[in-house]
Amino acid sequence: MPHNSLAPTEYPVHELIARRRSPRDFIITPISQEDLWSILEAARWAPSCFNEQPWRFLVAHREDSEDFERLLTCLVEANQAWCCRASALILCVAKHDYTLNGLPNDWAVHDVGIAVGYMALQAVAIGHFTHAMAGFDKKRAREVCEIPEGFAPVTMVAIGKAPEPDVPLERSRKPAETNVFTSIFGDALNQKV
Amino acid sequence: MPHNSLAPTEYPVHELIARRRSPRDFIITPISQEDLWSILEAARWAPSCFNEQPWRFLVAHREDSEDFERLLTCLVEANQAWCCRASALILCVAKHDYTLNGLPNDWAVHDVGIAVGYMALQAVAIGHFTHAMAGFDKKRAREVCEIPEGFAPVTMVAIGKAPEPDVPLERSRKPAETNVFTSIFGDALNQKV
Repeated sequence: MPHNSLAPTEYPVHELIARRRSPRDFIITPISQEDLWSILEAARWAPSCFNEQPWRFLVAHREDSEDFERLLTCLVEANQAWCCRASALILCVAKHDYTLNGLPNDWAVHDVGIAVGYMALQAVAIGHFTHAMAGFDKKRAREVCEIPEGFAPVTMVAIGKAPEPDVPLERSRKPAETNVFTSIFGDALNQKV
Repeated sequence: MPHNSLAPTEYPVHELIARRRSPRDFIITPISQEDLWSILEAARWAPSCFNEQPWRFLVAHREDSEDFERLLTCLVEANQAWCCRASALILCVAKHDYTLNGLPNDWAVHDVGIAVGYMALQAVAIGHFTHAMAGFDKKRAREVCEIPEGFAPVTMVAIGKAPEPDVPLERSRKPAETNVFTSIFGDALNQKV
């Protein structure tokens, strides 16, 4: 299946969303500073509760070998095996509390998710892919990356060029109606289209 | 400022991301079923941990008055005041545990965030806007929408056509370097671009 194959959507979606996927391998290649900062910029413009921008991004270009190694070794071994070929690695961290008033921000992790999602689409727009991962050692990340109290490691993201064809290419989703209800949970929304 | 004004980005980002904003008012107008399902489809293709797809969407078109009223009255009054003009309202719910093994899914809310973010961009792509809100009564939502144990209301999303010009148009972010570090927290990443 070609590199830029589209997801088998039931309804039309923008090409960026249809082309996005999470490759499990990368071609060893550096990413330009321009491209890396554009991906980070997409995250920066994500919406967040009270515009808190609760995300912090710890970034390692593969050519910054000390930083790259530090982040790489936070991943579980199965992810290290292919992320060692990533162009860059990012550790996404959430700030627990609102800066304004110190109260708990229940949407911090949610908003980090939006930012991670926008990184993925911006990467696709400029010829890269990302793969967001839960498979890393949060305790180790906190230690080696010196993450202070009040912040929590959430997700790691690998960025790179994907080989073609990708292995394996899994792009399945539950049917559209499975997760979509009327205003009553479990009551499937009629597809009148 | 025109309806489709772009965010003042420091680095180039895709137009969808630059055009996305969260309006605080809508022009009263129905949304077509095609457009509504395309927005939901974008969420469906969001990535999620183990492809769990932990999101559930409770959807009310403004013409389904009973559903619309049910969701509208979950919002805090300040949001009801303008969301009553939305074309549709969506309550986004997260499933706590992995379906596969029943273990807690620490990324459920994060992945709902990605899906909410993709809804926003698909809306922009087809001429609508969304506004994701924390300002609603989760307890009431659980009751009136009959959300079962094991699921949690996370975010409400209003979809609609935005008036031009929008009031007020706030599109500020902290400088790019503020939230971007090397692999050591707090160590600003050099902008070599």
